[in-house]
Amino acid sequence: MSASETLDLYRLQGCSLQWRGFVLAMAEEFKDALPEADVARLMARIGERFARAHPLPAVESLEALALAANAVWAGVSWGAVRMQDGGSEVVIEHLAAPLTALLVHHGNWNMSFLEGVYRAWFREAGMLPSLDLEPGPGGSADVSRYVLRRVS
Amino acid sequence: MSASETLDLYRLQGCSLQWRGFVLAMAEEFKDALPEADVARLMARIGERFARAHPLPAVESLEALALAANAVWAGVSWGAVRMQDGGSEVVIEHLAAPLTALLVHHGNWNMSFLEGVYRAWFREAGMLPSLDLEPGPGGSADVSRYVLRRVS
Amino acid sequence: MSASETLDLYRLQGCSLQWRGFVLAMAEEFKDALPEADVARLMARIGERFARAHPLPAVESLEALALAANAVWAGVSWGAVRMQDGGSEVVIEHLAAPLTALLVHHGNWNMSFLEGVYRAWFREAGMLPSLDLEPGPGGSADVSRYVLRRVS
Amino acid sequence: MSASETLDLYRLQGCSLQWRGFVLAMAEEFKDALPEADVARLMARIGERFARAHPLPAVESLEALALAANAVWAGVSWGAVRMQDGGSEVVIEHLAAPLTALLVHHGNWNMSFLEGVYRAWFREAGMLPSLDLEPGPGGSADVSRYVLRRVS
Repeated sequence: MSASETLDLYRLQGCSLQWRGFVLAMAEEFKDALPEADVARLMARIGERFARAHPLPAVESLEALALAANAVWAGVSWGAVRMQDGGSEVVIEHLAAPLTALLVHHGNWNMSFLEGVYRAWFREAGMLPSLDLEPGPGGSADVSRYVLRRVS
Repeated sequence: MSASETLDLYRLQGCSLQWRGFVLAMAEEFKDALPEADVARLMARIGERFARAHPLPAVESLEALALAANAVWAGVSWGAVRMQDGGSEVVIEHLAAPLTALLVHHGNWNMSFLEGVYRAWFREAGMLPSLDLEPGPGGSADVSRYVLRRVS
Repeated sequence: MSASETLDLYRLQGCSLQWRGFVLAMAEEFKDALPEADVARLMARIGERFARAHPLPAVESLEALALAANAVWAGVSWGAVRMQDGGSEVVIEHLAAPLTALLVHHGNWNMSFLEGVYRAWFREAGMLPSLDLEPGPGGSADVSRYVLRRVS
Repeated sequence: MSASETLDLYRLQGCSLQWRGFVLAMAEEFKDALPEADVARLMARIGERFARAHPLPAVESLEALALAANAVWAGVSWGAVRMQDGGSEVVIEHLAAPLTALLVHHGNWNMSFLEGVYRAWFREAGMLPSLDLEPGPGGSADVSRYVLRRVS
């Protein structure tokens, strides 16, 4: 068996059997009923609400923020994140998110839920208004990538 | 401990930990952003898509239809259904649906997903156009009730 | 539908579909291969190991101990506990444990895993050697009851 | 992030959060209390019971047997199998089994549960008494490999 078959199985299995059908049906409905940009905005708002319902403790460093975020993600079997400070920008890579893996063929908005979560968490942690989070290059079923950088 | 505490625990536990936060955030967003009737219609359409993605085999009786539906529900840990032919109408009771239990305080549309599923399954099974399915009385966190009756 | 059917569904659904078959097969094998007292001891030792792998923070009161325990249980969808100080003894009631519910017809050792967990947690919290934990009366599929009392 | 980190996350996430702690504690207890060969035999017997509780329909070909087995595995989020007829032997590769992935560092018996399952399913399908199933080479956290060949 190829490594790719193994990965496909893990991608599916990492997503609760109970919700796969519901989430896929929801994604199909959104795809047919709404422009992709609207679905992306909706998903980001859902992510912001998720972040407010799962507030992180106050932290002093990017590393501590990533640790706190990973405690939330481990608690809900939602993969894990790594945050890297690149000086002028922060690169956020979220691995093995079940929604991203499940909806990889349903459009780019499969990454917008996590985008909303991280935006709200960074805002809450004191992110300057001149910064914002946006999708980064190279996303895949397994990795959702975002970049936090100056936008104005 | 009271029986009600036990039930509350089971209601929560019957819903995958992985998706509780996402689904609750989605429900909050819908509640704030859309009229309840619109959310109900959206959920019903998602249910119809779920039904088409999980087609039932052709059956000869209401009892066989319920059996086929319960095979789908057992496969995704989504409770179970009983259908009773009352002569002029069919009463459909769905027990222990995780979405209904989770969203019981988010409005009546928590029952609309299953309404869409059953409508599509009955249509596919040859339900006359003069019949339709509508929510029945006495729904709760544990029981979603629908009635199939002549509407025209 | 009766309340008892609802409960039966929740008992099943509260236990991950992935592990039901494995755990039931394991229980059948133990029932045939080992005396019940041996299985109970094995389950209690497994519980003690689970407790050591999930240590509770130091606490000052029984209420705080119950809170800390419930944080562990919520994190693994394993029901919840209430602890009541009755003066000469402490009554521990654990609700909605998936192993207890799943194995209710496989013998009394379905409660021994949690017995081991609580014994180890109380020992770690400084329980006097003259005290011990034993199964209390009135256990059921939904409630596992233990009593902590002087044994020597 | 490396592909290996992604895989580690998927291996963990593919195993229900509810049972990870219990199964790991059980594995530790077995490792300390029993010789490895005894645990392997116990796991194989549990697998045989699982197989009897999940009987496959009668089939006419190896391909149909694999299909039937995969319907069982998909239903419990337990990975998937491929069976290849090599003339003098059949090679069975099971991918993404949660027990194998979880217990990869607990000894070779992490593959014995599935060995028992396949032995019972092949026996039930009419495997000649002169054949038997044994672990094949090259097993890993992701692939459990077995070979069905003449043993006498």
